[in-house]
Amino acid sequence: MPNSDQIVLLDFFPSVFGIRVRLALAAKGFEYEGKEEDLTGGKSSLLLKMNPIPVLIHNSKPICESLIIVEYIDEVWKDICPLLPTNPYQKAKAKFWPDFIDKMVYPCSKKLWKAKGEEQEDGKKEFVDRIKLLEGELKSYPYFGGESLGFLDIAFLPFYCWFYTFEAFGNFSIEAECPKLVAWGKRCMEEFVSRSLPHQHKIYDLVVEFNKKVGI
Amino acid sequence: MPNSDQIVLLDFFPSVFGIRVRLALAAKGFEYEGKEEDLTGGKSSLLLKMNPIPVLIHNSKPICESLIIVEYIDEVWKDICPLLPTNPYQKAKAKFWPDFIDKMVYPCSKKLWKAKGEEQEDGKKEFVDRIKLLEGELKSYPYFGGESLGFLDIAFLPFYCWFYTFEAFGNFSIEAECPKLVAWGKRCMEEFVSRSLPHQHKIYDLVVEFNKKVGI
Repeated sequence: MPNSDQIVLLDFFPSVFGIRVRLALAAKGFEYEGKEEDLTGGKSSLLLKMNPIPVLIHNSKPICESLIIVEYIDEVWKDICPLLPTNPYQKAKAKFWPDFIDKMVYPCSKKLWKAKGEEQEDGKKEFVDRIKLLEGELKSYPYFGGESLGFLDIAFLPFYCWFYTFEAFGNFSIEAECPKLVAWGKRCMEEFVSRSLPHQHKIYDLVVEFNKKVGI
Repeated sequence: MPNSDQIVLLDFFPSVFGIRVRLALAAKGFEYEGKEEDLTGGKSSLLLKMNPIPVLIHNSKPICESLIIVEYIDEVWKDICPLLPTNPYQKAKAKFWPDFIDKMVYPCSKKLWKAKGEEQEDGKKEFVDRIKLLEGELKSYPYFGGESLGFLDIAFLPFYCWFYTFEAFGNFSIEAECPKLVAWGKRCMEEFVSRSLPHQHKIYDLVVEFNKKVGI
């Protein structure tokens, strides 16, 4: 990145979407200015409900939505640690599972710590079924990207940071269900500096505090 | 497209996601083989629940997820009627609203014809609030893409095909709420051959039949 470039990231430390962008920036080896916004106080306006976090501001230009931001970063700095293939078909294939995570894994992962009783149990079953499909995609590679980290690794690793919280609230072991996926998470963690990833217990503590505040 | 290329589209005529792909292919002026799958009979397996429709099969290679498919088509045949800008920042901006439609407009649009009473009213309010934001993006241009059709036009036009159904079930007028958006829809309809777009009444009839079948 040229020295004249300026990157600011509006973020909130436990956000799975914010973590994606932190990971992409870390993969490229970039420094940036992080601005933390505490979202536990509730979101009021429609624009806030649209999940404005994370926002990447590159040379004063804002970019929204985590997967769009990661792809932007990868496109602008394509020569450093490429995350997506350049071939259109390989690229379309690489984008399928991150989309699946947003549409099919994220909603049920929220039920694990936000819901109780039957709804929570349904969420757990859905979550396990779906991450098992993801685990199958690892095949015998160390990373989803093959021999090195790629777009899907960056898209799913933030959820690994939440595994402790999911397990504690859902009273189950993800490792018992998806041992290869947990081994993958540990492998990825070694690749990234602590700055990009919040400690699993710190997320858990925040969720406990948040649930107390809103009465869950 | 070279004569040796073969395109097959697995589709279901009222699907907003299928219509997107039909529009992208029409924008490029391509012929393809359409294979219709009736999804009103219910979806059984997890893979089916993942919304397998539409699937584009290009020279035997399958590509899933409507926005990913449209981007693929645009990338492979970038010289014919480009739908996305090539500049990474302009591209990221162009991809924001289609993502907003999938996450914020599609879910509440379903409540308009699937839900009753308070849930339906909530859905209607959300739907109107959100499409008003979209309408604001038109500014004074004829299309979301500016002077010609672009990615966002293709992403939202399928919802225009459902306007009659939304209005009939929700008992409201979208034109009264968003006159510029309805004028935009009519303008776009003139651009496309009937093959790409199902008639608004045909969708309505199918939804009535479907609701009767499942007891809504």
